[in-house]
Amino acid sequence: MWDGRFEMPTDKLMEELNASITFDQKLWQEDIKGSKAHAKMLCSVGILSEQDAKAIDEGLDKVYAEIESGKFEFKIADEDIHMAIEKRLTEIIGDAGKRLHTARSRNDQVAVDFRMYCQKHSLIIQNQIKTLIATLVEIAKNHTETLMPGMTHLQHAQPISFAYHLMAYCAMLERDLSRFSDAYNRHNLCPLGSAALAGTPHPIDRFATANELGFDAPTINAMDSVASRDFALDLLFNSATLGINLSRLAEEIIIWSSSEFGFITLSDAFATGSSIMPQKKNPDAAELIRGKSGRLVGNLTSLIVTVKGLTLAYNKDLQEDKEPVFDTVENIEAVLAILPPMLKTAKIRTENMLKACKIGHLTATDLADSLVKKGVPFRETHHISGRAVALAESKNVDLSALSLDELKTIDERIDEGVLASLSHIASMNTRKSYGGTSKESVLVQIAHFEKLYN
Amino acid sequence: MWDGRFEMPTDKLMEELNASITFDQKLWQEDIKGSKAHAKMLCSVGILSEQDAKAIDEGLDKVYAEIESGKFEFKIADEDIHMAIEKRLTEIIGDAGKRLHTARSRNDQVAVDFRMYCQKHSLIIQNQIKTLIATLVEIAKNHTETLMPGMTHLQHAQPISFAYHLMAYCAMLERDLSRFSDAYNRHNLCPLGSAALAGTPHPIDRFATANELGFDAPTINAMDSVASRDFALDLLFNSATLGINLSRLAEEIIIWSSSEFGFITLSDAFATGSSIMPQKKNPDAAELIRGKSGRLVGNLTSLIVTVKGLTLAYNKDLQEDKEPVFDTVENIEAVLAILPPMLKTAKIRTENMLKACKIGHLTATDLADSLVKKGVPFRETHHISGRAVALAESKNVDLSALSLDELKTIDERIDEGVLASLSHIASMNTRKSYGGTSKESVLVQIAHFEKLYN
Amino acid sequence: MWDGRFEMPTDKLMEELNASITFDQKLWQEDIKGSKAHAKMLCSVGILSEQDAKAIDEGLDKVYAEIESGKFEFKIADEDIHMAIEKRLTEIIGDAGKRLHTARSRNDQVAVDFRMYCQKHSLIIQNQIKTLIATLVEIAKNHTETLMPGMTHLQHAQPISFAYHLMAYCAMLERDLSRFSDAYNRHNLCPLGSAALAGTPHPIDRFATANELGFDAPTINAMDSVASRDFALDLLFNSATLGINLSRLAEEIIIWSSSEFGFITLSDAFATGSSIMPQKKNPDAAELIRGKSGRLVGNLTSLIVTVKGLTLAYNKDLQEDKEPVFDTVENIEAVLAILPPMLKTAKIRTENMLKACKIGHLTATDLADSLVKKGVPFRETHHISGRAVALAESKNVDLSALSLDELKTIDERIDEGVLASLSHIASMNTRKSYGGTSKESVLVQIAHFEKLYN
Amino acid sequence: MWDGRFEMPTDKLMEELNASITFDQKLWQEDIKGSKAHAKMLCSVGILSEQDAKAIDEGLDKVYAEIESGKFEFKIADEDIHMAIEKRLTEIIGDAGKRLHTARSRNDQVAVDFRMYCQKHSLIIQNQIKTLIATLVEIAKNHTETLMPGMTHLQHAQPISFAYHLMAYCAMLERDLSRFSDAYNRHNLCPLGSAALAGTPHPIDRFATANELGFDAPTINAMDSVASRDFALDLLFNSATLGINLSRLAEEIIIWSSSEFGFITLSDAFATGSSIMPQKKNPDAAELIRGKSGRLVGNLTSLIVTVKGLTLAYNKDLQEDKEPVFDTVENIEAVLAILPPMLKTAKIRTENMLKACKIGHLTATDLADSLVKKGVPFRETHHISGRAVALAESKNVDLSALSLDELKTIDERIDEGVLASLSHIASMNTRKSYGGTSKESVLVQIAHFEKLYN
Repeated sequence: MWDGRFEMPTDKLMEELNASITFDQKLWQEDIKGSKAHAKMLCSVGILSEQDAKAIDEGLDKVYAEIESGKFEFKIADEDIHMAIEKRLTEIIGDAGKRLHTARSRNDQVAVDFRMYCQKHSLIIQNQIKTLIATLVEIAKNHTETLMPGMTHLQHAQPISFAYHLMAYCAMLERDLSRFSDAYNRHNLCPLGSAALAGTPHPIDRFATANELGFDAPTINAMDSVASRDFALDLLFNSATLGINLSRLAEEIIIWSSSEFGFITLSDAFATGSSIMPQKKNPDAAELIRGKSGRLVGNLTSLIVTVKGLTLAYNKDLQEDKEPVFDTVENIEAVLAILPPMLKTAKIRTENMLKACKIGHLTATDLADSLVKKGVPFRETHHISGRAVALAESKNVDLSALSLDELKTIDERIDEGVLASLSHIASMNTRKSYGGTSKESVLVQIAHFEKLYN
Repeated sequence: MWDGRFEMPTDKLMEELNASITFDQKLWQEDIKGSKAHAKMLCSVGILSEQDAKAIDEGLDKVYAEIESGKFEFKIADEDIHMAIEKRLTEIIGDAGKRLHTARSRNDQVAVDFRMYCQKHSLIIQNQIKTLIATLVEIAKNHTETLMPGMTHLQHAQPISFAYHLMAYCAMLERDLSRFSDAYNRHNLCPLGSAALAGTPHPIDRFATANELGFDAPTINAMDSVASRDFALDLLFNSATLGINLSRLAEEIIIWSSSEFGFITLSDAFATGSSIMPQKKNPDAAELIRGKSGRLVGNLTSLIVTVKGLTLAYNKDLQEDKEPVFDTVENIEAVLAILPPMLKTAKIRTENMLKACKIGHLTATDLADSLVKKGVPFRETHHISGRAVALAESKNVDLSALSLDELKTIDERIDEGVLASLSHIASMNTRKSYGGTSKESVLVQIAHFEKLYN
Repeated sequence: MWDGRFEMPTDKLMEELNASITFDQKLWQEDIKGSKAHAKMLCSVGILSEQDAKAIDEGLDKVYAEIESGKFEFKIADEDIHMAIEKRLTEIIGDAGKRLHTARSRNDQVAVDFRMYCQKHSLIIQNQIKTLIATLVEIAKNHTETLMPGMTHLQHAQPISFAYHLMAYCAMLERDLSRFSDAYNRHNLCPLGSAALAGTPHPIDRFATANELGFDAPTINAMDSVASRDFALDLLFNSATLGINLSRLAEEIIIWSSSEFGFITLSDAFATGSSIMPQKKNPDAAELIRGKSGRLVGNLTSLIVTVKGLTLAYNKDLQEDKEPVFDTVENIEAVLAILPPMLKTAKIRTENMLKACKIGHLTATDLADSLVKKGVPFRETHHISGRAVALAESKNVDLSALSLDELKTIDERIDEGVLASLSHIASMNTRKSYGGTSKESVLVQIAHFEKLYN
Repeated sequence: MWDGRFEMPTDKLMEELNASITFDQKLWQEDIKGSKAHAKMLCSVGILSEQDAKAIDEGLDKVYAEIESGKFEFKIADEDIHMAIEKRLTEIIGDAGKRLHTARSRNDQVAVDFRMYCQKHSLIIQNQIKTLIATLVEIAKNHTETLMPGMTHLQHAQPISFAYHLMAYCAMLERDLSRFSDAYNRHNLCPLGSAALAGTPHPIDRFATANELGFDAPTINAMDSVASRDFALDLLFNSATLGINLSRLAEEIIIWSSSEFGFITLSDAFATGSSIMPQKKNPDAAELIRGKSGRLVGNLTSLIVTVKGLTLAYNKDLQEDKEPVFDTVENIEAVLAILPPMLKTAKIRTENMLKACKIGHLTATDLADSLVKKGVPFRETHHISGRAVALAESKNVDLSALSLDELKTIDERIDEGVLASLSHIASMNTRKSYGGTSKESVLVQIAHFEKLYN
């Protein structure tokens, strides 16, 4: 390919280190699509003859068919998917194939292929997020009155509904969705035609290829177009953040699946056993989801380190951009694929959630709050309630089990109304503030999230 | 504060580990602003009396004045800025101060304070990015005809203008700007009123406080509001990506400042000398800009690791969210502040850039491209040009210095027109494709970027 | 300092960005110590007169006293701690002060100061790790017969002793200790005398200063000495790994502190309450330990990114090396300081651990293993035991509660001996393999770890 | 495998997410080796009959041959390499195969396999580092008098030899070597026999298997043995640090290969051309070495995030440990393989290095230093030299080209001796301090590094 000025063949080790075809073959569809758009445009502006353009278009279809059917042989010596396809095209159609690379460089070719890949998978992931939100909403609809202990610091805090807890994840996922969608829009620009780094003297029509390939417009500066990879960084960060959010859901599922909690039981279809301990049933899927957040963060770090301090325009370091993205895409898509069926088939053990509500004095805040309504300053009612909790602890019962007489020994202002506030279901349903856990508030949230996928 | 049920005082070591006031005092303005809005709303819905509300409002003004004037004493024993301010308020106004914390928790209080801080600094950073773009554009306007060797792999590639090179950074910065702006919009929701994790039974008006504090609306789920920190992750990632982009500009300035390149000379005002080597003039500012990309990435990693695997809702781990953000904000703002004056005062050594263009056969692609226009396939013209380069190398001259006769020994089809394409300025100006380096194309780019700050 | 060839004063913004005195003042003791050793050596080889050396030594003592007593004023204009101290020294002793900087540069001066700091704190951390191991061992000694459910996947697996569980952390900490100790030895070499990058023509004695400052020898190459920071990377990685190990212990303490588990109760002195929920008692210390692992990893990332791709020798980027190290040192030392008293004062709720052992068929493997002793292949006994577990589940009892008759319905080969293996304490104590959970094995482990600190 | 208590088959998505055989097949040799040692030991302690042990041993040899010859079929349904091999073994030898898994679990099986893999590759990498040091030393031997401009801040600083510059990298590599070697020793302990998490009741001999597999001893605590992966973290960090060091060498090679520097020319065999620019010769190998530091850091981050906050003992998250390690090992080994031939075949352009020495007043420090020898305080001589530099700049010559008369206009004390110090070769050779750049000092360094590989 560059034999003109080289006097020595490439060393074998160098050939191997340098070749990207072992992994960038994943871009074969994008590469053919990009080349077809490029040829069509070259023809429309008069650079390619109709005949050559037709030969190229049909030749590329043949190469497509060969790869799709598994007949195409990927060779290290071809260096990358771009050269491999072009070489095969030229074998098939002859000299016309050599004219395809007019007015472009591998620098913009790889940039457009890789960007198309990222945009395609961004859309796939966005759809998967919507499906996951829909799944959570569907489950939540059945649990707007299912009491569970809301926790902070993994300590019982206040009674909430299970639906409400799931809505918290929907709120995170809505932002994840917007993060992908914003990045998609930010980067929906076509680098093809940037050539090596400076554009081209050929009278190409970059708006035409941009349009043909589904982009909004061509990129504004060719040098940046071949030198920048922040479209990939965005995909990596958005996936890492999503993965971190899902690691929290996974952590909860794992803890909820313990004997001690018993809030949830995964279906046998999404759990595994042990090769040595016959009684085990492990929430492996959730553990993998949690564990995979590591590689998602690692892939982001990989590329960010690689790009640091690079001069403009293209440097070979950028060949390292693809593997972290491929790995992230495969893993986040696998995680998003398994979550809906895993969640749908899980058994929510509402009886254990309810039982747990009776531990930890969940309505202590309600005691304080209802005294506030009588005009006692909150900082004081907080103290009164703390003493009621101490009393309950000394009697080894939950706060909600104390009698009015017992409570009155703490503070005379405690009356029937205050006592009523100690009921768990009442506590939950009084939290009607916007975004709160009351059934009323949760229905508002459900309606909000339903709009995201309907 | 929580003495009701505790039997033993906090251990000294624990108090120190637990206290955040040493760093979260940075949020004092946000905390007072948030409390004022909260009090005003509590009054409007009838929870606070007019009298109490007024006392609180005026009391907070006094606390504000005390902190601003440096009279306020921050104590470890007060744990955090929120308790410190509330305690002082109560000292000043008495019991009314104890009513301020009605219908909120420290969980939502810290969430709203920290989010306001992040949003405020996002706007500052966005303005700084605009100023930097404006600076680059202003410099570029004087250099649309300044030739320099465009490089890939740090090897001379094609002639470009210095203005064009600067436009590449504007393109990156435009995306940085959009990243901050998208995140700003994504997170412009108010968590205040989420209370501990479940909302509150008090009839608060979250839309009122959201509006008062400059947010678009309240957050949709209280549990998520106190448990999530992806608004901070976005700020950290956006800053890291910006920092990585700037590390590339810094790297180029450092290389361009070397004796060997000599493309740029920083003003003495932005360089430093050596304590031991009297002749040294070092581009320290650029090195610090490059070096600081490390901590920006590190701060992102810090928080992402901290959040991984946390159960809902609030956990104390989240107290670790602030320091990385504070550090990132300070450093990225310092970097963005120094770049415009540093760039404006730098001497662009155009004569050295021009001299460098005469090395490295920058117009070899033009030779190939002009033969393409005669109908020779690109893959073949590439080879012809490679042989012309080899000829020039053997004569120890630049390709552009070869005569027509010499060139004809390589290929008979080379004629006067082809020869003309070897001129550097011609080469640059023929690259008229959208996004290319020709003066014509660069003026389009300049116009595009001017819109970002005008 | 470098006014000789500069024509313009440093810009204010530049001065601020460039100055490190705001943070490197932390190295004041190391700086004075290093200068004293340097002066002593300069005198011994005849470069400094006895008189000058004495003046410098006494002058530095005065500066030391000023800083120690808080009288010393740190100014941005002095740039860094090294210049600040030298300037003050010269104010005190006059011209002799100007001779101190002979045969050294700030490059080696900062390198030796920072390395001394890292080595000092490595020793402190090593001692803290030993104290933590001692604490765990002391607790373990009381719990070699305390049964608890050993878990994998957070599911009950096999009965173990609490002592055994603690020994797992001792094993991790032993490696952490060796990691710090290996790094200490690797880097116990003195960079002083490397000068700017190339050594010095002065007849200095680097072995003398190395010895004086507690190093084993001088570094072997001056260029590397001023350009490398892997001694700091080692400290950051070793702390991050230690922090990650401790994050696991912290996670367990948090889960064990939940109502559902109830395996441990932290002392009130190491827990906190809630500003809104009067009943809460939160394991904040453990959460902070877990959360701080984030910044430890982030600090490692910071410096590793900063160093990436730097040319030799010193670059200003390296000024960014100190803050991540200072932050890591402070945080890991705080975490290591709080763990021993927090663990010692915690209440181990052995009754709940024991109760938990009766859930989850912990001895299912023992059933399988005891049949293996009768010659049945393990893969078959595993299946038999699985069926016994299913039987127990159907009867809603633990496997250990099944009668011999019931068990015989699963497999005739089950006899009294097999039945005996279902006892939890027996199960634990039969695991006598080296490194196992039996009391016998755990005592071996305790003896092993005791050697680390005795 | 665990059908005893499961009522539903594993979901297809779950099977795929869960299976590790697609990547852990890389451990097939270690798995067979480990099983053979386990079987041999089981027989020696009487758990396996001689006959069974022999059948297993021979059966495993057959499986080995099948895999080696490519006949073995890896199936997702077999989940992992361990089950796949055991299943095939049992197909070949029948019931005896089912007895192999006695007294071990997959938890310790995977731990020992993976640790053997890491230890094996640690040794390979250590040897590669030695080869690289040897290569640098051999090149250095020819360049102890080759002058080049030593740089700080990429600015000319002082004259050094090229050999000296290379020795700086040897010093880094020596520490890299010790880092791998220390970690090797730290982790050369055998986890086999730890079983699921608690050891085993079978009378196994862990010292025998440890010895058989090349370990120093068995691990001390079984729970830690199946739960910890810091042996992998060490390998990842050590590789990342090595990669970061090599990124610096690569950066220098890239800069030195630029037209502007021209200090080095890579062989055509280790460079590449351009698909569009016929004149290009790019240092791709060096760029890939620099770029790959990103993934090495990323892989470290991956695993460190995955391990954060995991409860003991084994969790499925740990299955994510292998891919980052495999990727790191492959890439660091590839980088270390290409460096020696790339360096050996590169042309060192000493004439350009020498020419560069005449720019930048490299001997300004020598001027200051030689005045110090006359008793002038360094801070004063630094200033004198700075003025001499300014004089040279005003005459547009290098400091070393000034005449004695010209210099005397700056300061009368400048004499012939001082003038002599301005010679570059003299400057280099006077830096005889230990670790300095003089030929004498560099020969000491060379002798030191030769010992590492001889």
